[in-house]
Amino acid sequence: MRAGSAAKRLLVGRPLDSGRLGETLLPKRVALPVFCSDPLSSVAYATEEILLVLALGGLAVLHLAWYAAVGIVVLLLVVVASYRQTCYAYPGGGGAYVVSVENLGQRAALTAASALLIDYVMTVAVSVVSGVAAITSAVPSLDGHAVALSVFFVALLAWLNLRGVRESGRWFALPTYAFIGVIYLMFAVAAVRMASGATIRAESAALPVEKVSTYSGLALVLLALRAFASGCTALTGVEAVSNGVPAFAKPKSRNAAMTLAIMGVLSATMFFGITVLAMVYEVHVAEDPTELGLAPGTPMSTALAQIGRATFGDWHVLFYALQAVTAGVLVLAANTAFNGFPMLASVLGRDRYAPRQLFHRGDRLVYSNGIVLLALAAVALIVAFDAQLTRLIQLYIIGVFVSFTLSQAGMVKHWRRELATPAAAADRHDIRRRLAVNAFGACLTAVVLVIVLITKFTHGAWLVVIAMPVLYAGMRGVRRHYDTVAAEVAVRPGERPGTLGAHHVLVLVASVNAPSLRALSYAKTLRPDSLTAVTVAEDPAEAEVLRATWEAHGIDVPLRVLSSPYRSIVQPILRHVRDAPERTADAVISVVIPEYVVGHWWEQPLHNQSALRLKTRLLFMKNVVVVDVPYRLASARELAAERAKAAAERS
Amino acid sequence: MRAGSAAKRLLVGRPLDSGRLGETLLPKRVALPVFCSDPLSSVAYATEEILLVLALGGLAVLHLAWYAAVGIVVLLLVVVASYRQTCYAYPGGGGAYVVSVENLGQRAALTAASALLIDYVMTVAVSVVSGVAAITSAVPSLDGHAVALSVFFVALLAWLNLRGVRESGRWFALPTYAFIGVIYLMFAVAAVRMASGATIRAESAALPVEKVSTYSGLALVLLALRAFASGCTALTGVEAVSNGVPAFAKPKSRNAAMTLAIMGVLSATMFFGITVLAMVYEVHVAEDPTELGLAPGTPMSTALAQIGRATFGDWHVLFYALQAVTAGVLVLAANTAFNGFPMLASVLGRDRYAPRQLFHRGDRLVYSNGIVLLALAAVALIVAFDAQLTRLIQLYIIGVFVSFTLSQAGMVKHWRRELATPAAAADRHDIRRRLAVNAFGACLTAVVLVIVLITKFTHGAWLVVIAMPVLYAGMRGVRRHYDTVAAEVAVRPGERPGTLGAHHVLVLVASVNAPSLRALSYAKTLRPDSLTAVTVAEDPAEAEVLRATWEAHGIDVPLRVLSSPYRSIVQPILRHVRDAPERTADAVISVVIPEYVVGHWWEQPLHNQSALRLKTRLLFMKNVVVVDVPYRLASARELAAERAKAAAERS
Repeated sequence: MRAGSAAKRLLVGRPLDSGRLGETLLPKRVALPVFCSDPLSSVAYATEEILLVLALGGLAVLHLAWYAAVGIVVLLLVVVASYRQTCYAYPGGGGAYVVSVENLGQRAALTAASALLIDYVMTVAVSVVSGVAAITSAVPSLDGHAVALSVFFVALLAWLNLRGVRESGRWFALPTYAFIGVIYLMFAVAAVRMASGATIRAESAALPVEKVSTYSGLALVLLALRAFASGCTALTGVEAVSNGVPAFAKPKSRNAAMTLAIMGVLSATMFFGITVLAMVYEVHVAEDPTELGLAPGTPMSTALAQIGRATFGDWHVLFYALQAVTAGVLVLAANTAFNGFPMLASVLGRDRYAPRQLFHRGDRLVYSNGIVLLALAAVALIVAFDAQLTRLIQLYIIGVFVSFTLSQAGMVKHWRRELATPAAAADRHDIRRRLAVNAFGACLTAVVLVIVLITKFTHGAWLVVIAMPVLYAGMRGVRRHYDTVAAEVAVRPGERPGTLGAHHVLVLVASVNAPSLRALSYAKTLRPDSLTAVTVAEDPAEAEVLRATWEAHGIDVPLRVLSSPYRSIVQPILRHVRDAPERTADAVISVVIPEYVVGHWWEQPLHNQSALRLKTRLLFMKNVVVVDVPYRLASARELAAERAKAAAERS
Repeated sequence: MRAGSAAKRLLVGRPLDSGRLGETLLPKRVALPVFCSDPLSSVAYATEEILLVLALGGLAVLHLAWYAAVGIVVLLLVVVASYRQTCYAYPGGGGAYVVSVENLGQRAALTAASALLIDYVMTVAVSVVSGVAAITSAVPSLDGHAVALSVFFVALLAWLNLRGVRESGRWFALPTYAFIGVIYLMFAVAAVRMASGATIRAESAALPVEKVSTYSGLALVLLALRAFASGCTALTGVEAVSNGVPAFAKPKSRNAAMTLAIMGVLSATMFFGITVLAMVYEVHVAEDPTELGLAPGTPMSTALAQIGRATFGDWHVLFYALQAVTAGVLVLAANTAFNGFPMLASVLGRDRYAPRQLFHRGDRLVYSNGIVLLALAAVALIVAFDAQLTRLIQLYIIGVFVSFTLSQAGMVKHWRRELATPAAAADRHDIRRRLAVNAFGACLTAVVLVIVLITKFTHGAWLVVIAMPVLYAGMRGVRRHYDTVAAEVAVRPGERPGTLGAHHVLVLVASVNAPSLRALSYAKTLRPDSLTAVTVAEDPAEAEVLRATWEAHGIDVPLRVLSSPYRSIVQPILRHVRDAPERTADAVISVVIPEYVVGHWWEQPLHNQSALRLKTRLLFMKNVVVVDVPYRLASARELAAERAKAAAERS
């Protein structure tokens, strides 16, 4: 098994896969791109989001970006330090849901789960839209097609994941390292050029920034906080590493913590560097081109694209490389959600907060449902918000900080419990230190959550504030249902299968053909107490024809013809079964239905539709069992043969 | 049974309902509104469509409307005379499909069916949009909401039909007679006012009609023909009466022919009267308000609304009454399609050109599918064409004239065959006369079809020209599939059910609970040659727990645990069944699945999903039968009780 496919399997399969683990674990150089494409890529848009908010206050307040950027770097380092503790405490993987459920109970865990589900959708939507913005910045003629391009990329990711992408480890590594490399190269070029006395300015430096209103006093503070909150997108995806600890090479926790530290340093420097260049180059951005004195509808480049164009100057190839790897790493960041979503759904399925089937991730179709669901939700958001990154971002950060806060708070609880158990004095000191880190992290992220809520609520975050409780209530409802059902089907200790009474079999026939004869043959092997063939006829003539054929064939099963003046098939049979004299208290009636099995999807609606509806109704009748006797038509036999061949080739 | 509900039942159920006929038949006064709301209501927009086309040529060519109107009245009377013959020849109902299939063969019949299916969709779309135009003409503030209103009415009709509207006969009678009454009242008022010397002019009389281009020579002729073709919408729905002959009181054919004649006279006079008033009042209309020198987006009244407003003057209540009954009769006209569509689908299902199940109209769900399909198609058209009547009309007329022509041509064949049989001389004379009427009708409608095709093709009719062959090919494909399957399942004369070999039963269990025990009980009553319980365990611990419980309960069925390292449920079972040593050439394996039956739709995805997928796969295996043993949860038992109660109340 190659390292790439192992990476994928582990990423998708852990921490819940059973058996066969520990064969191929990820070294840090592979784990970094696998787990960090999401947090690293978010530096591509974080700076711009800060500037966009401050632009509302005009040129005079743009300098506040420095404070926001410093605040974010501090926050990032604190969160990274905090999550490093999780890597040590949860070598089996410490996602927000797992940590919450173990330390804070089900309610907190479900809150975290609601936040995470929303986050996955937002990760796809925001990353893809941002990736498309990188493309349209390089090719302005595509500017009007952002929605279509975004939907295309989401569909592409969904398709790749549905097909079961192989070797995604390698794919992850390439654009992620390329992105890091190009960004640092850009820093180096900028430093050298500026050191040699060049004055570099962004293309938008000369554009005016028309303030939307004048901010001062509390309003100015709120604007700065809002800019800070917007920039916090740089932190999204940080927890992926702590989630994936078991996939790391040994010593797992140490390696994961180290990777997290590397990621933190890379993220912080890249984010801060980009912000410095944006300020030095005087990058001016605004949500609406008219605020920059441009004609409505003028295509605008992203801040990062402007920085790249200004830095690389005539080296166009480097600029295009920057845009290409930015788009690449962002689309791959979206891909992480396609792995994370089914993983979380599986845990929720195991704990019965989601349909139980989601737990059985081995069955391809279940996994597919999750992928399709995620893609549809992301597409809906992209279309609803017209692929406008800034509007989508408002919905993103709340979920992230809800899970941050719960996760850190859970860690505080965790360490306190550790302290309560007798341990060596040295350990106790260590644990106290870790507790302090997590406590500080929890407080800080809680404060940021409040800031985000206050500054973003009216800008769209209210949607998330509504969606989270809805998801929460839905999951609780599912669990309640499963609990009720479990109580309902429980049996007394030692209870055995009961003995049923007489067994009567009805075989539904439409005419004397191969499927009907086969169903009759099968019915006979059941050795029932009575066996009757039942048919529905719309008029007496039709009934006569069938009866004559029946006799001509000399079939030794009595034929019962039900008349159906209104041409219903379902009703007469239901009535017949309901009023059957054989239906005593303990007798069982088996209704045998010959079923045509077809090989093409389009043949499906042409057959068995009445049988299907009949079945759904019969299931509600007491002591009635439905038996499908399949008759495989040629197309079905071909399909079966193809499948068998494919299965043989796989193994 | 009340006359109203009888009307509905007959309209919906005939001519294909079996048994119990002839109890309550429709007198002419009820049949007229039931069958003629569609053709009568089309006079509400036919005149306007003529004027809209001529407006392209400016004021100078508006007088050509006279020629178009006269042509249409002649055509209408010819078509009515022609269809009167059908009423006599087909007392069992002579729709275009029936007449074509009997006289012209399957190809012509399928062509007619394609045309009719499209017509039903167009009837809904055009009538509803036109009805909404009547409303927005009276309440101009609703002008921007035409699409929403139209979709609302289509949804309302679909909902009423899904609920199974009762007493629709009465509902049909009221707006139809009110419409006729108000139109004739309007004629009377206009005549009296003008006779007393008043000069009545429409509100738009003073507006200029800016010609789009100058037409002369052949172009002028084509424009006149196009205006004529547009006005031919007045003929839509004429064949409904000949379709419904069996619903008439005796003498059926005579009464139907008489009703058709009355309808023809009413339609012709109303259409011609409206056109006369439009010309006298100098009603000016255009597709775009700017062509009338108005600001873009100015709400414009329909021609009929302008005539009504001008005629009734200060008697506003009469104007509003006119608009209300116009909207009412148009929406009811749309309703006729909701009856006709399933009727045709049923015939196509009987002849196996459509899924066979459609024939079994007695089963509510099938009928519902047709209604939903029709509504969705109409809504799609309304949205795609922005609820613009004129653009929709282009698609309407082709289908109508295709079925007219085929129907008349079929009648010609019919009479020729009649002539070939020996008959009395008097009869022969009569038949020759009828043949002449139909032959003339066929030629005339064929000529009009060519005119419509030529003048409308580039204006949207090409869509229908594509859609018809697609529908045709689809229906042929369905029939071919059914024929292939029938050949495949045919048995030799005298063939009997064969004898199968050993019967092995596998019961799938997840845990020891009531549904599992019940499935085991059932499996025992099958007296199989072998009986095994099969379970899938994700890890050895889980397997151990189940095995211990199994033994604690002392269940005397061997338990086989399949391991599933990848947490799939479906794959291990499929593999187990596939490789089962018992699976010899003639042995049968029954897979018994305990199924949870739930009463709420939202509970459905929470259960049985793995079972469902398993079933679809097992059906493809040779000699494998799937048995569902239902376990009804409390919610299912409640639903069953409710249904039983409802059924008891109905009967």
